[in-house]
Amino acid sequence: MKRLNIQILLTGNELMLGDIVDSNSAMIAQQLKNIGVNIQRKVTVADELSDLVDEIRHMSKQADILIINGGLGPTIDDLTAQALAQATKVELNDNSEALSHLTAWCQQRNTPLAYPNLKQIHLPSNVKIIANPIGSAVGFMSHFQECDIYCTPGVPHELERMMNEEIIPLIKKKIPDGQQYHVIRSQTFGYGESSIQALLDKKMPEWPKEIELGFRAAMPFLEVKLACAREEHAPLLTSTQQKVANLLGDHLIFPIEKNSHTMAEHVLALLNRNKLKATFAESCTGGLISSLLTNISGSSNVFEAGFVTYSNHMKTKMLDVKPATLEKFGAVSKQVVIEMAQGALKKSNADLVIAVSGIAGPNGGTTEKPVGSVWIAWGSNKQIETKYFCLKGNRKYFQKMVATRALDLIRRVLIDSQEIPHYMK
Amino acid sequence: MKRLNIQILLTGNELMLGDIVDSNSAMIAQQLKNIGVNIQRKVTVADELSDLVDEIRHMSKQADILIINGGLGPTIDDLTAQALAQATKVELNDNSEALSHLTAWCQQRNTPLAYPNLKQIHLPSNVKIIANPIGSAVGFMSHFQECDIYCTPGVPHELERMMNEEIIPLIKKKIPDGQQYHVIRSQTFGYGESSIQALLDKKMPEWPKEIELGFRAAMPFLEVKLACAREEHAPLLTSTQQKVANLLGDHLIFPIEKNSHTMAEHVLALLNRNKLKATFAESCTGGLISSLLTNISGSSNVFEAGFVTYSNHMKTKMLDVKPATLEKFGAVSKQVVIEMAQGALKKSNADLVIAVSGIAGPNGGTTEKPVGSVWIAWGSNKQIETKYFCLKGNRKYFQKMVATRALDLIRRVLIDSQEIPHYMK
Repeated sequence: MKRLNIQILLTGNELMLGDIVDSNSAMIAQQLKNIGVNIQRKVTVADELSDLVDEIRHMSKQADILIINGGLGPTIDDLTAQALAQATKVELNDNSEALSHLTAWCQQRNTPLAYPNLKQIHLPSNVKIIANPIGSAVGFMSHFQECDIYCTPGVPHELERMMNEEIIPLIKKKIPDGQQYHVIRSQTFGYGESSIQALLDKKMPEWPKEIELGFRAAMPFLEVKLACAREEHAPLLTSTQQKVANLLGDHLIFPIEKNSHTMAEHVLALLNRNKLKATFAESCTGGLISSLLTNISGSSNVFEAGFVTYSNHMKTKMLDVKPATLEKFGAVSKQVVIEMAQGALKKSNADLVIAVSGIAGPNGGTTEKPVGSVWIAWGSNKQIETKYFCLKGNRKYFQKMVATRALDLIRRVLIDSQEIPHYMK
Repeated sequence: MKRLNIQILLTGNELMLGDIVDSNSAMIAQQLKNIGVNIQRKVTVADELSDLVDEIRHMSKQADILIINGGLGPTIDDLTAQALAQATKVELNDNSEALSHLTAWCQQRNTPLAYPNLKQIHLPSNVKIIANPIGSAVGFMSHFQECDIYCTPGVPHELERMMNEEIIPLIKKKIPDGQQYHVIRSQTFGYGESSIQALLDKKMPEWPKEIELGFRAAMPFLEVKLACAREEHAPLLTSTQQKVANLLGDHLIFPIEKNSHTMAEHVLALLNRNKLKATFAESCTGGLISSLLTNISGSSNVFEAGFVTYSNHMKTKMLDVKPATLEKFGAVSKQVVIEMAQGALKKSNADLVIAVSGIAGPNGGTTEKPVGSVWIAWGSNKQIETKYFCLKGNRKYFQKMVATRALDLIRRVLIDSQEIPHYMK
C-alpha cells in the first residue's frame, strides 16, 4: 500500500545562518507521528524568491502533501505567498477573508492597520484560508501537481495551534485505510525503557499484536506510547492502556491540571489542592529545587522559604544540624539529612519538607561515598523517611535527577501512594 | 563575483521523526559565518539508500561544497558511504587508513574490534580520510561533478571538532579573494543592539567602511562581531576592535578563564581569584541565583549558603528584616532589600551579598509597583548599594534577567569597575 509522501519546506535566512535552531519541523513530525505518518524529506532555503519557486515546483511534483513553514510575515523577506503564486502560475490578489482577519486582529489590539501588514493579505487568488486564532498572518492552502500545499506561520506557538486544529485533521483524511493511527501517550517517572519492557514481558506475556508499544525519553521523564493502526482496534487500545496503567501504578503521572507538565508543576498543584506548604533544605542541589517550584506562577501559595545550606557550618547555623552529627557521620549521611529536614520544618512552619545532601562532583568523592552519592529525606512532622541513591552521570544530570526524585517522593506523599517506586527497589 | 555555493545534506530517521532537533546544521552555519560564507540550501532525508543517492547526485550538481552529516556509524541504517559510492559510481573498499584509526581507537579503550565496526572502514575507493580524534568513525571527502563532498559524523562534538580543525580550513582555501573573512567576537552584557549602534554612531562617526559590524542576541548576552573581508585590513580590524572595546568598557565581558561562559562562571572565577565568598538573599528569584552558581563545579569554595525568603514572615525569621520595615515600605522596597542584604551577610559570614525582592508576575502587580518591579541590593559590609528596575517580559525572562543583572553588579564590584552600567542609566 502506497504511503503518503509528506515533505516540508522551511524558509528563513535566520535558519540558514544558524542564528536559530529549527524546532518547528520536529514539532510537525511529532504531530504527524501521532496520526501514524512520517515526513519523507525536508528542505531549508534562505529567503530568495527564485530558490523558493524552484523548490515548491520540485517538491510538489514528488509529494502528496507539502507543508511550507515561514515567510508569512509583513517584511520584505517574507516571500511565501509570492513564491507560491509564481510556482503555481496564479495571480496575487487582495484576499477579503485575510483582510477581515487582519482588521479584527488589529482592532482587538487597538492598533491601526499598518501599511506593511497589508502585504499579508496579498495572496495567490486560488488559495483557501486557514485560520490563525493567535497571530496576524493567516495560513493558506493550495493544490498543485496533485499535491496539497499548506503555508504556515514560522512563529512556533501559532504553527503548533494551526497544525493541531486545522491541518492535522485535513491530513488525517488523506491517510489510506489501514494506515490510520490511534495513539495514547502517558508520562512516566521512575522506570527506564528496558525496565518497563521487562515488566510488560513478564506481566502481559500475551501482548496483543495489534497494539504497538513505543517509548520516548524526555529526561528525566519517559513517555510511553501505545498505538494501533485500525479504528476497529481502538477498544483494544483503550483496554491495553488500562492494563499498562495498572502495572505502572503511581509511576504513571497523569496530568492533574491541564497545564501541568513538569514534576514541580504536579507538586505545586497537589500542594494547592491539599492546602499544604513545602520547604526545601538543599545542599548538593544548591537552590535548584526551590528554583524549580518558584519559577511557576502561584508558587507563593505553597512555598514560603528554602534553605541553601552548602557548607557544614551553615547546616548548623541555619538548620540546627548538630556539629556532633556532622562530625560523626559526615555531611552526606542519613542522620544529617534527617536533622536538616527537621530543622527546615521547624524554621519554616511548612507542612512538608525535602532535604538533600550529596556529592555532585566531578570532585569530592571518596571510596566510601563516591561522586553521585546522595541522601534524601522527605516527609512531615509526623514522619520523615530517608533513602540513599548513587547516581551515575555528570553534575547537571545529578542535580536534575536528585531534584526530580525528591519532588516525586513528595508527590507520592501527597497522593498517599502505597507503592515503592522502582528507583527505590 | 560568484559566491561559493555550500549545501548540507542531513541524514537520520530520528531527524525525520522529530525525536531530536537538528542543532548540527546551525553549528556548521555559525562556523561558516566566521569565515564569511553562508549555506545555500539544506536537505534532510531519512536513512533510505535510494533517497540519499538521488540527493547526493542532485545537490553535488548545484553546489561547490556539499557537507553530508550523519550516517557514518556501524549500524545497518548508516548508509552514507554506500550512498556516496553509488552516487559517484565507485567501488567500496576496505580503507587501510580507516582501519588503522579504528584499531587504535579500540586499543585505547581496551575493547575488541567488533564486527559491526568493520562496516565503518568500508569506504568509496577514491575518498580522502578526514581525521576524527575523538570518535570511532573517520570522516572522508570526495570530489564529484566539480563539487567537494565532505562526509561528517552526526555526534555533535565530533562534528564540531572535525569542522573546526579539518574542514573549515579546507573550505577557507576555496573562498575567492576578496571574500575572505576575519572576525573578532566579544560577549557583552547590559547594552541592547540599538544602544550599541547609537553609541558607535555617536563616538565613532567615521566608522571604517572596510569593517562590518554585526550582533547576535544570546539572551541575556549580546555578542558583538567585527569582521573584514581582506587580509590587508586585519590590522584595521584589530585597531577598530580596540576602540569599540574602550567604548563598551566593562560591558564587554572578556573571558577571564578559558571555560568561563556564563555570568555565574565569571563571578565564580573572580570570587576564587579574590578569595572571597558570596551569599544570596532571594525573594522573587526563588533560589535561581544560588542554583546558577552551584551548578558549577568548585562553587563550594566561594559559596556557603543562600536564603530563599519568599514570604514576608520568612524574611523576618531568616534574615531579621524588621516587621515595621515590611509594614511601612512593603516587601518590594529599597529598605527591605537593604535589610535582607545585611541579614544575609550577618548570618552567613560571606564577604559579598546580593538581595532581590520583586514581582515576577503574571499576578501580584499594583499601579505603584507593577509586575516586573524589582529592587536589588548588592555589596559588602563596607557598602551596600541598591537599584530599582522595572522589567518587561514574562516570569522566566524576569527571573533570568534579575539574576544576571544581580550577578553582573557583583562582577563589577569584583573588578572594581568605576563605570555606571548602561542598564542603570
